[in-house]
Amino acid sequence: MPSIDGARLLGDLHRLRDFGRYETGVHRPTYTKPDMAARHWLMERMVEAGLAPEIDGIGNVLGRSPAPGPKLLVGSHTESQNHAGWLDGPLGVMYGVELARVLPGHIDVAAWADEEGHYGVFLGSRSAVGEVSEAEIDACRNADDGKPLRAALAEAGLAGRPRLRLDPARYRGYLEAHIEQGDELEALGLKIGVVTSIVGIWTFRVVFTGVQNHAGTTRMAIRKDAGVALARLCTEIERRMPGVGGPRSVWTVGRITLSPGAQSIIPGRAEMFLQVRDADPAVLAHMRAAVFAMVAEADAAGPCGATVEQIFETTPHVMLPAFRAALSRAAERHAPGLHQEMPSGAGHDAQMIGKIMPAAMLFVPSIGGISHDIAEDTAPEDIVLGCQVLADAAAEILAAG
Amino acid sequence: MPSIDGARLLGDLHRLRDFGRYETGVHRPTYTKPDMAARHWLMERMVEAGLAPEIDGIGNVLGRSPAPGPKLLVGSHTESQNHAGWLDGPLGVMYGVELARVLPGHIDVAAWADEEGHYGVFLGSRSAVGEVSEAEIDACRNADDGKPLRAALAEAGLAGRPRLRLDPARYRGYLEAHIEQGDELEALGLKIGVVTSIVGIWTFRVVFTGVQNHAGTTRMAIRKDAGVALARLCTEIERRMPGVGGPRSVWTVGRITLSPGAQSIIPGRAEMFLQVRDADPAVLAHMRAAVFAMVAEADAAGPCGATVEQIFETTPHVMLPAFRAALSRAAERHAPGLHQEMPSGAGHDAQMIGKIMPAAMLFVPSIGGISHDIAEDTAPEDIVLGCQVLADAAAEILAAG
Repeated sequence: MPSIDGARLLGDLHRLRDFGRYETGVHRPTYTKPDMAARHWLMERMVEAGLAPEIDGIGNVLGRSPAPGPKLLVGSHTESQNHAGWLDGPLGVMYGVELARVLPGHIDVAAWADEEGHYGVFLGSRSAVGEVSEAEIDACRNADDGKPLRAALAEAGLAGRPRLRLDPARYRGYLEAHIEQGDELEALGLKIGVVTSIVGIWTFRVVFTGVQNHAGTTRMAIRKDAGVALARLCTEIERRMPGVGGPRSVWTVGRITLSPGAQSIIPGRAEMFLQVRDADPAVLAHMRAAVFAMVAEADAAGPCGATVEQIFETTPHVMLPAFRAALSRAAERHAPGLHQEMPSGAGHDAQMIGKIMPAAMLFVPSIGGISHDIAEDTAPEDIVLGCQVLADAAAEILAAG
Repeated sequence: MPSIDGARLLGDLHRLRDFGRYETGVHRPTYTKPDMAARHWLMERMVEAGLAPEIDGIGNVLGRSPAPGPKLLVGSHTESQNHAGWLDGPLGVMYGVELARVLPGHIDVAAWADEEGHYGVFLGSRSAVGEVSEAEIDACRNADDGKPLRAALAEAGLAGRPRLRLDPARYRGYLEAHIEQGDELEALGLKIGVVTSIVGIWTFRVVFTGVQNHAGTTRMAIRKDAGVALARLCTEIERRMPGVGGPRSVWTVGRITLSPGAQSIIPGRAEMFLQVRDADPAVLAHMRAAVFAMVAEADAAGPCGATVEQIFETTPHVMLPAFRAALSRAAERHAPGLHQEMPSGAGHDAQMIGKIMPAAMLFVPSIGGISHDIAEDTAPEDIVLGCQVLADAAAEILAAG
């Protein structure tokens, strides 16, 4: 079995942390100067690891091995959320570079562009599987400042470059390692999570329609306050959803808007976004039915009207059982009894690459379950352990032929 | 008793409606071109009614009678909310002009600037009673676009003009007529409301502090969702407040902000503004105690912290009993049995002018209780009746000496 170099891996990760460093974390949004510098630094590391790197027209970095024979693709992403952590993405990419060193000729490494969604939804990995049109690129804008994606690509020196398309015939499959971003491994005292599936994300928009009116002269008895109706539904969701979802289901109201939103005006309209996640399509459908029923009840109860529509839906993506088994065996070898299978509550590039080849994912613990924050971290020994487990599993998958 | 000319009054109101006309309503924000044109048109009407008008450095228009002897001040405001109704303000000002015609020598008429709060809080009437400093004017900005008040005054040609100060010794008192802005008179089949007091407005800011986290990877059991905590308090307020306030108390949550407000992020902070109104200071204090108790309970229950602070407070302002009696007698004469005493749920310039002289207010019905909307309206016969009642009451007050 290959033996990875933990010090070399940690050195790479710490060097990458310097690009866009922000306090204990990084601020490295897609296509910014620090992000592009990091991509070019990564390409140099790939050359040292015996790979032939290229950067494509959407910013994907792909390092291919020139050797013939069966290969695994290993990767994740290098850009960060705004003012966020140092490991979310970089961990999986630098694991790939280390695997290319210890399994020479058998590993290609990828850093998919904009997994963090500064301009779109999984732009890099979706582009690599042929799902992003030129028209979509024309339409994308930065979520914070509205800058067109085309302008960002031009400033980054990527305009006019061709976009790569992965050849599934080249690969046995795709492996992605990632920090857990939750606290489950830590809470259970475990070191490795083998991902069973990436959850489906279903998002609903609920709109309440009441009557906007003066907050002083309108008697309580005749009010149709859309904000009150919305708060009542939120409370009902918290009361009933635990009995509807599965043990790992999550639901979140992340955004509420009252209109007009003034202290002295009764809200005539109120809008909320409810997102539910689960790995089981049947559980998702059950939660959707419950949401639609609760909104219908609110509408029927009055005095405000209530409507709901589903505005986003991803399908849960199941990881290949044979790859999961290889990861679990490797985990048992290096951390006996300290691993488990678990779903991924977050979306990852693996669900896109997994559309055209077998895919699997491995999690390492997140300290305190924190991610998307400068406090994001993982113990160095856990980082090294995760890479060794991934290397072992890759070797077994390649040997299985 | 004086006899007002209903057709003349309605003609004036319809002419004033043309300044900034917007569909069936008006869009005449303070100091805009249509607003300033309306003020200058009003000054011409004042001259025709035998008054000597002036416009002061904050935009107040005051028409004084040159005759000696006891006087009443009658007025309201002429600017409108954005895209709002035609009678809110203009009704009381044009009643004043009509009273000046039928009670010559005894009526001064005022149009107070910015009652609608585009730049501040009752700027015109507060200035007229000496409550607005130059420093406050320096600091005021437009609520919609942030334009400095000084710039707006300069563009309106008002920069450098002195600001008038009312001389309380000149007046027996102040009368203001206004549309009800609620549906109570209409619902009871009444034509006149005699205002007992203007309610106090107390506003509270409640802030919930949880932990911002990933909406996919954070298990429900460990979440500290500030939005959920806020919704629970809103529901609790709706449940408990009816047993706390008085029969005419109102409470409104007009503004809610979840931070960061993204679909995939558990809100770490949530803020709401709760405004309560009542005419009785003891009831207001009782409601405040209940709000503080509910927030303390939410804080103690966890998992989110909750804090509350009072950020705004006006004192209920009682109208002079002798004036109220004169208004009720006049109402009984012209609309026997079709009038009542009632508090004003909205704030009005009368509460500011009332600080330096006796004040009273009269309401006419609002069709459907609608105001601050282009659908705002009052039946023409009700408009005429209200003016006749105000004229009779003014004559009685003046005769009482």
